[in-house]
Amino acid sequence: MTGTLRVVGVGPGDPELMTVRAVKVIQQSDVICVPTGKEGGSSLALSIAAKAVNLDGKEVIEAYFPMKKTKQQGTKSAEARKRGSATVPKTSGFTNIRTSSLVDDGELDQKWNETVQAILSKLEKGNDVVFLTLGDPTIYSTFFYLYDRLKEALPDLHIEIIPGVSSINAAAARASVSLGLANEKIALLPANYMEDLKDTLTVFDTVVLMKVSKVWSEIMHLLTEMNIVDKAVFISRATMEDEQVIHDIRDVRQDEINYFSLVIVRK
Amino acid sequence: MTGTLRVVGVGPGDPELMTVRAVKVIQQSDVICVPTGKEGGSSLALSIAAKAVNLDGKEVIEAYFPMKKTKQQGTKSAEARKRGSATVPKTSGFTNIRTSSLVDDGELDQKWNETVQAILSKLEKGNDVVFLTLGDPTIYSTFFYLYDRLKEALPDLHIEIIPGVSSINAAAARASVSLGLANEKIALLPANYMEDLKDTLTVFDTVVLMKVSKVWSEIMHLLTEMNIVDKAVFISRATMEDEQVIHDIRDVRQDEINYFSLVIVRK
Repeated sequence: MTGTLRVVGVGPGDPELMTVRAVKVIQQSDVICVPTGKEGGSSLALSIAAKAVNLDGKEVIEAYFPMKKTKQQGTKSAEARKRGSATVPKTSGFTNIRTSSLVDDGELDQKWNETVQAILSKLEKGNDVVFLTLGDPTIYSTFFYLYDRLKEALPDLHIEIIPGVSSINAAAARASVSLGLANEKIALLPANYMEDLKDTLTVFDTVVLMKVSKVWSEIMHLLTEMNIVDKAVFISRATMEDEQVIHDIRDVRQDEINYFSLVIVRK
Repeated sequence: MTGTLRVVGVGPGDPELMTVRAVKVIQQSDVICVPTGKEGGSSLALSIAAKAVNLDGKEVIEAYFPMKKTKQQGTKSAEARKRGSATVPKTSGFTNIRTSSLVDDGELDQKWNETVQAILSKLEKGNDVVFLTLGDPTIYSTFFYLYDRLKEALPDLHIEIIPGVSSINAAAARASVSLGLANEKIALLPANYMEDLKDTLTVFDTVVLMKVSKVWSEIMHLLTEMNIVDKAVFISRATMEDEQVIHDIRDVRQDEINYFSLVIVRK
């Protein structure tokens, strides 16, 4: 009998912020598939799971997702776009958290196919597989790049997606900031937002800015111009051991901003 | 010694989607404070917690938050706005999930103060208190209406906010839809969005529409006009026993839409 694939959000970093269900399904699964930015590199999601669950004896498949720097969007089917899966792998920004390398689509294609085949091979042997994602699987997780490929290869495959605590909610909690109340509007902007950030800041009550490092001076300039610097808070690596919460973002040192840094602007 | 106040997100409904930490702190606390829409009514957050933790012997404070129908925003201090707490209680839409009643500000003020006093009285006796919220505390939770009042009354009070799985992430997971990938922009719109929904749908890759019931025909009209009805999915009561996921939103019956219904439009 074919095994079950479960996609599990392990939360933002603190292993106690894994859900009871995440812990249980990782315990019960024979095979763990984890995304990693660098071939052979270790996975942050795996290290979180390892703090909550004894992983001895479990097989670990490392899925290598090289970062791709192009900004072009590929052409995708309506269904693929909806699910978030790139059938033509031209979308950018795979979550390689430590390194980036320019790769051609052929390499990405090959890596994805290798991961799909590795997962399917285990499922077909009757093993249950968990695919770990940092935070929540539906928020900027690489898993959705695999979804359609898996379903195409094995149409009857049941994929259970188990939600987790998103790093965005964790960041807001650590900064004691509400993301929204009552009828307030919230925008999440991961990158490439400078061209229309002013409009978004005007219309939305709360704006979460991710990938702030490269545009830090532009962000500071705009918030200063709009007189809302005091309404922003900076959070880095929320709930991890080296977490930073900086309520006056003028104190943020640009060289310390990392991939897990975000700014919440709440007007 | 003063007790600790912990604000705990209990997740979207399935008790297994509570975090390990949520279960632990509820177990360890003497007093549980839960929001309820109707005085004396039961709390959904409490019923979720009760499925995961034995609550026998714990004291339960029901915090009555009447729903207020006005759309005016009150004037708030910059700090209060940032935290999301209303010092002048004129914001609308408190999460009364079963009923709504028009109340004057005086009644709201009095109810909030009663809750603050009840919590402080327990903390000052040395009891640890947990304040339960459905989903995640930073996403549209009534708790932030209390935050500043509590800090004002007891400036040294340490309030720990423990993030949870948001119902938005849970809904996306149950519908197998990514909310965002790579550099995509996400908008969360709880209500009153019809006037600029077309612009938002144009600029953002994913738009989550909440409180869809009253504007259902307008939503259907706009999505049809924009030729994106097929890119929307309807989810109601995600991970609860009577969950509904409707991939063709033309099949949604307006009279079945409830407070926990949302639509994810992913272009």
